[in-house]
Amino acid sequence: MDLALDLARKGIRGANPLVGAVILDPAGAVLSSGFHRGAGTAHAEADALANAAASGADVTGATMVVTLEPCNHTGRTGPCSQAIINAGISRVIYAAADSTADAAGGAAALAAAGVSVDGGLMAAESTDLNHRWIRAAQEKRPFVTVKSAQSLDGRTAAEDGTSQWITGTAARTDGHSIRTRADAVVVGTGTVLVDNPQLTARNAAGEDAVQQPLRVAAGHRPVPDDAAIRGTDGRFLQLFEHDPAEICRELYARGVRHLMIEGGATVAGAFLRAGLADELVAYIAPVLLGAGTPAFANLGVHTLSDASRWRWDETDGGAARLVGADLRLRLEPVPAGTQPVDVPAGTQQLEG
Amino acid sequence: MDLALDLARKGIRGANPLVGAVILDPAGAVLSSGFHRGAGTAHAEADALANAAASGADVTGATMVVTLEPCNHTGRTGPCSQAIINAGISRVIYAAADSTADAAGGAAALAAAGVSVDGGLMAAESTDLNHRWIRAAQEKRPFVTVKSAQSLDGRTAAEDGTSQWITGTAARTDGHSIRTRADAVVVGTGTVLVDNPQLTARNAAGEDAVQQPLRVAAGHRPVPDDAAIRGTDGRFLQLFEHDPAEICRELYARGVRHLMIEGGATVAGAFLRAGLADELVAYIAPVLLGAGTPAFANLGVHTLSDASRWRWDETDGGAARLVGADLRLRLEPVPAGTQPVDVPAGTQQLEG
Repeated sequence: MDLALDLARKGIRGANPLVGAVILDPAGAVLSSGFHRGAGTAHAEADALANAAASGADVTGATMVVTLEPCNHTGRTGPCSQAIINAGISRVIYAAADSTADAAGGAAALAAAGVSVDGGLMAAESTDLNHRWIRAAQEKRPFVTVKSAQSLDGRTAAEDGTSQWITGTAARTDGHSIRTRADAVVVGTGTVLVDNPQLTARNAAGEDAVQQPLRVAAGHRPVPDDAAIRGTDGRFLQLFEHDPAEICRELYARGVRHLMIEGGATVAGAFLRAGLADELVAYIAPVLLGAGTPAFANLGVHTLSDASRWRWDETDGGAARLVGADLRLRLEPVPAGTQPVDVPAGTQQLEG
Repeated sequence: MDLALDLARKGIRGANPLVGAVILDPAGAVLSSGFHRGAGTAHAEADALANAAASGADVTGATMVVTLEPCNHTGRTGPCSQAIINAGISRVIYAAADSTADAAGGAAALAAAGVSVDGGLMAAESTDLNHRWIRAAQEKRPFVTVKSAQSLDGRTAAEDGTSQWITGTAARTDGHSIRTRADAVVVGTGTVLVDNPQLTARNAAGEDAVQQPLRVAAGHRPVPDDAAIRGTDGRFLQLFEHDPAEICRELYARGVRHLMIEGGATVAGAFLRAGLADELVAYIAPVLLGAGTPAFANLGVHTLSDASRWRWDETDGGAARLVGADLRLRLEPVPAGTQPVDVPAGTQQLEG
């Protein structure tokens, strides 16, 4: 299960949970392994089965160890429970149960087909890995990624409003790779009027990606007829709405499971303040501005104890990684009930 | 020389250059190696000679490859030129020449003693590694480290002024380890009045380090008699001065070779604006405040093209490293004449 969890951590965050799977022969030797690489790609179980088939390994009578209860539904891929039964796997050990309404029931389906099933092994670790996805799924809202591209001192534009380019090409390309995995991208109408972004997902050469997100302008100000965000593909939507919960509800109803917030500061701040941000991706340019537009505003934080607190996300490429000349930082919310890492009691000796 | 440069990169920045040394036998096999670990410790040449002695290697007739011309003066350690001669090394290959008035002349001293000496091999790489130290030494001013401890959105205090603690114990301990290597630490008189810092170097248990920096308050406001910065050891100084160049001149004359700037935003901004910052160490807490005191102010940057531009420093522990719950970022100024990493021409396709 340790190995399966390590495999899970290689996955890409988004609409789907991080899952890893390992197939063992009756003597306990590893026959194959797999993990889920993000929405639209094979589930970990299917990946492990495909890797076994590719290497010619016989999985009849084998045991599958997987970090999440195998799914029992047909989404963009078929139900894993059936694939496991068809492959002749005789035992499944999973960590966390799948509590989502759509996918639950995998363990029962496997047991009904005569597969020996045990759940709960290292369930806490699996749940911790996917606490954000679990929460979003339970709340029936999209998984929300908030992106910022800022100077080291937290500015997205200089005093006179100039902002092109604080971060470099590689960071922008990396940001576009999140767009292409997202189902929708949101900006405020203020950003539409000031920056006139296209919001399409493009590669480094500027070519449109095959998979494009819905482009959403949130707010009451009119979006000009010639605004770039409108495009010509019909994938544009204006929501006359500022409330993040309402925006999530509306977009979830339209099938959006991964939502990316691209700004500006007020829209990003509203999602953070509402507790509706599951992931923060910040591209930090090695630049200081000393003044200008802040990356985050209206968080409702007056005193330090009310700060929006996060923790570094070391999975999926690491908490900090150089992307061209910029640094990409990845953070996740601190799960409710987590004790602060730092215990204030022992720290006063280092005051000033 | 590649190996010697890699060794040099392991060193600690500060008053002294980064230097690495490798000793080769006549057949070209490595007998020993060494690097300089910061002010007050053995130079790279002495470290390599000591390592050879410790392992029982005979360096008579050997070749030393070193990234900087061996020094010829007695500082906190003796002259390397003499140590090399005494050890019986018959050939020295160095990269960059030592142009500092105090230490220069090592190559000449070696040659006069009959050692074969060649300089200039990979001199550009060595110079690049030490461009900041070279500049400070040439300008006869201290090497300046600017430290900040801030939220991800660049704030050092919340809207109501609360700032204890944005960063955690481990980050503060790490900051104290820079203090103990510095010859002086500067804060503005405004910071003295608001935060009343001690500015001593302490370990995690709060005990004073053996080596303490001079504590300097810069500015015109009176420092209260009971201010913590005064201490009782006589290592306190107020400079009635705001000009960073004057502060550097005054402290250099008092023997300060490594100066650490601890804030506030105005003092840090003044050093950055004056081009008198050789190193930026930023401790970033995984926290957003959305408002509050900015980490840097008065940089004189109105438009993006005037931004204070840096590059990530990947030596000495890396550009980004988790220190407890916080991230430590290290940056160095972009050397004059360096082309931007990002060529704006090819980037417009990723606009918005």
